[in-house]
Amino acid sequence: MKTRVVIIGGGAAGPKITAKLLRTKEFDCSIDLYTEEDMISYSACGLPYYVEGLIESSEKLIVRKPEQFEQQGAHIHLQKKCIKILPQEHKVLVQDVKTQQTEEIEYDKLAITTGARPIIPSVKNIQLENIFTVRKVQDGINIRNKMRASESKKAVIVGGGYIGIEMLEAFFLNGFEIYLIEKGSHILPIFDAEISDMIKDEIVRMSNGKVHIITDDAVAAFQGANKVEKVVTEKGKIIDTDIVIVCVGVAPNTEIAADAGIQLGVSNAIRVNNRMQTSEKDIYAAGDCTEKFNLIAKNYCWIPLGSTANKEGRCAAINLSGQYDSFPGVLGSAVTRYDGLTLSLTGLTETEAKKYGFDVIASTMTKKDRAGYMPSAENITIKLVVDKRSKKILGAQAIGCGDADKRVNTVASAIQADQTVDQFLHLDMTYAPPFSTAVDPLLSAALVINNQLYQT
Amino acid sequence: MKTRVVIIGGGAAGPKITAKLLRTKEFDCSIDLYTEEDMISYSACGLPYYVEGLIESSEKLIVRKPEQFEQQGAHIHLQKKCIKILPQEHKVLVQDVKTQQTEEIEYDKLAITTGARPIIPSVKNIQLENIFTVRKVQDGINIRNKMRASESKKAVIVGGGYIGIEMLEAFFLNGFEIYLIEKGSHILPIFDAEISDMIKDEIVRMSNGKVHIITDDAVAAFQGANKVEKVVTEKGKIIDTDIVIVCVGVAPNTEIAADAGIQLGVSNAIRVNNRMQTSEKDIYAAGDCTEKFNLIAKNYCWIPLGSTANKEGRCAAINLSGQYDSFPGVLGSAVTRYDGLTLSLTGLTETEAKKYGFDVIASTMTKKDRAGYMPSAENITIKLVVDKRSKKILGAQAIGCGDADKRVNTVASAIQADQTVDQFLHLDMTYAPPFSTAVDPLLSAALVINNQLYQT
Repeated sequence: MKTRVVIIGGGAAGPKITAKLLRTKEFDCSIDLYTEEDMISYSACGLPYYVEGLIESSEKLIVRKPEQFEQQGAHIHLQKKCIKILPQEHKVLVQDVKTQQTEEIEYDKLAITTGARPIIPSVKNIQLENIFTVRKVQDGINIRNKMRASESKKAVIVGGGYIGIEMLEAFFLNGFEIYLIEKGSHILPIFDAEISDMIKDEIVRMSNGKVHIITDDAVAAFQGANKVEKVVTEKGKIIDTDIVIVCVGVAPNTEIAADAGIQLGVSNAIRVNNRMQTSEKDIYAAGDCTEKFNLIAKNYCWIPLGSTANKEGRCAAINLSGQYDSFPGVLGSAVTRYDGLTLSLTGLTETEAKKYGFDVIASTMTKKDRAGYMPSAENITIKLVVDKRSKKILGAQAIGCGDADKRVNTVASAIQADQTVDQFLHLDMTYAPPFSTAVDPLLSAALVINNQLYQT
Repeated sequence: MKTRVVIIGGGAAGPKITAKLLRTKEFDCSIDLYTEEDMISYSACGLPYYVEGLIESSEKLIVRKPEQFEQQGAHIHLQKKCIKILPQEHKVLVQDVKTQQTEEIEYDKLAITTGARPIIPSVKNIQLENIFTVRKVQDGINIRNKMRASESKKAVIVGGGYIGIEMLEAFFLNGFEIYLIEKGSHILPIFDAEISDMIKDEIVRMSNGKVHIITDDAVAAFQGANKVEKVVTEKGKIIDTDIVIVCVGVAPNTEIAADAGIQLGVSNAIRVNNRMQTSEKDIYAAGDCTEKFNLIAKNYCWIPLGSTANKEGRCAAINLSGQYDSFPGVLGSAVTRYDGLTLSLTGLTETEAKKYGFDVIASTMTKKDRAGYMPSAENITIKLVVDKRSKKILGAQAIGCGDADKRVNTVASAIQADQTVDQFLHLDMTYAPPFSTAVDPLLSAALVINNQLYQT
């Protein structure tokens, strides 16, 4: 008899599970994927570049269409929202978004891949027109339409995280004057404060007065008749605007999991073990709705990223098909860009490392990213964070030209393999003048720390 | 009393030792560096880009000038060639290049950093004008002057290694029609044959008929009155040309070391231990004149590279100053480019791995290097080589857009840390659409091998 696999959620992890199961010929199963949305498997990460205009058609953001899966034998149920999980009965309740009719679906194995959603802050008049969040393809389409129709070309971005910075780029490159409002003291707070400040200064410097970054302030209210016209901050600033993008963070879609008694963890994300199994028998979870294990902090965290969703989806599929796979966890590697500036990091920042109790030594340096005599040479700033006792590398932050993130990945590879800074500084890295310096900036940063460690 | 440190050779390693000793305040020493050349510390790797015209002034290739060292207290003796080492007496004989006068220099610690030189094949009429090798700054100046004065704009490059390919780029971008003649069956033979062939096809495709690559043939003779006019190959091809660049390989400058009874190893390079000590007491060696330990093959090899010379120079300086440092060895990481195409590798190729007795599994794949919907997405081809028994990664080759070499470095970091392919495929790599795919091409290549390993 076929194993009945039911998947709820169609973002990244759900379709990945579907694809992997379809390739697992030795596992005889039926696959039914339910999503409340009208499409599956789209790249939410690509939305800022669609808004910017780099990608002309929103169709391109769709990685896989339902028909492709249907042709291979999986069943994709659009606009069917899962409203209840019944673990004891091995059933889910699914509601048709249009007709509101519900039906009971039986499963042998269930995968929860419900993703995350933008947090909507409780600010007065947030329901006004032209106030958007960024998550779905339709959000991107709506924002771009309004952006292109805007005459005043004034926008406000609320929140200075990754999406905020990416939307800032999109509006800046479309000729807007933009105010970015960040509640905390620093934009991109996942970086160490001094690195965040370098980024902020660089963004403002490049903007020719068109980008204004306000920190330590928050939106108190929106004003306008039908559409938003003004943003009022807690400190009393009043900003004229035509469009507002709200990106103050995301929350995992885990209400139905909690309701079913499935254990949650950090940030209310679903706790899973290294096989992507939840606390309930035969129920797996993967992607943005799950908690992650931080390999360096040896602690749970919630870092929802598309790259991790893909790895988790694969792991969940292998395990629910009866084979064995283990996903060890994450380092928190991430990257974004702002108008040619790459902003990337992996592992723990100095601030985080101290919070987790490490005795930290750190080094920040700015060097040319390739031989200084090459006209293409540009500055790259690298910060390495090392544990004084074990000498293990804990994290790296890099900002600079295009491939700064690839250097971060080289450190990520070393961190994941528990390398110490004195092992790392011997790393045989490629060298030619158009690509690096004879002593790569990464190794220079490691040398500085090493010299300090062995002097004391 | 000051320790008398004598260094012979002024390329990369000698100046590195000098610089490191000058910073080692607790070591009381005199530093005398002797070189037969009229400058020190220049970037031979930058010569092709000087010839190409990317770097306007040859001055820019000079990393450090003698005066800089002199000001800090080191003594740089230009045009003084070391002609004999007397280990028992702790002396070297040095000859003035102009006056031929010799003098005896006493040392307490000696560092041999004599580098390597281009091999001059014994071909008829190789002494004709306009036939060049590429090693010294003056070579670059001579080649560029002839290139710019050439009316026929026809060149022949003999040898299809790194320097051959870099010189090919330089001449191609200066509007030349070029014949490249490679004795072996493949250009860039440090890559696996099918990768070399991909590179060759791509170079020819991009050249619009201006680049001709001849393999399995060699130069039989040069013809011309004073200057070279024709190249005759062993298979009877006669090629008109204005300039010939000979780059058929390099040989270590180790004759005086051998003459002094110092042990040599592979390719007649000086054998050193992990502290850069030679077989003779108080004599160290570093840079292109020394043998390397290959960390994966667990075998000696000779891969002379500027990046390694810097690491070895640092290690030699620390040890000869009485402290402890160990340089474990190399992976053979290297990179070059051809007109926007990055060609890079680390570790063992499939061919080499088999030669060293590994039971090999390999996977080659071509994927987009970033999200397919980004207009900047380009193909990258990655080959991973893995040991079937231990599942350890043995090597990677990557050709593609600008940052292909940085992906190779991410693998190098994993290889250096003895990672297996199933550890590597969980690597938390940065992801955003302008930088990579949600599953990076490196991880895709690892997944293909992993799936094969665990099915059998």
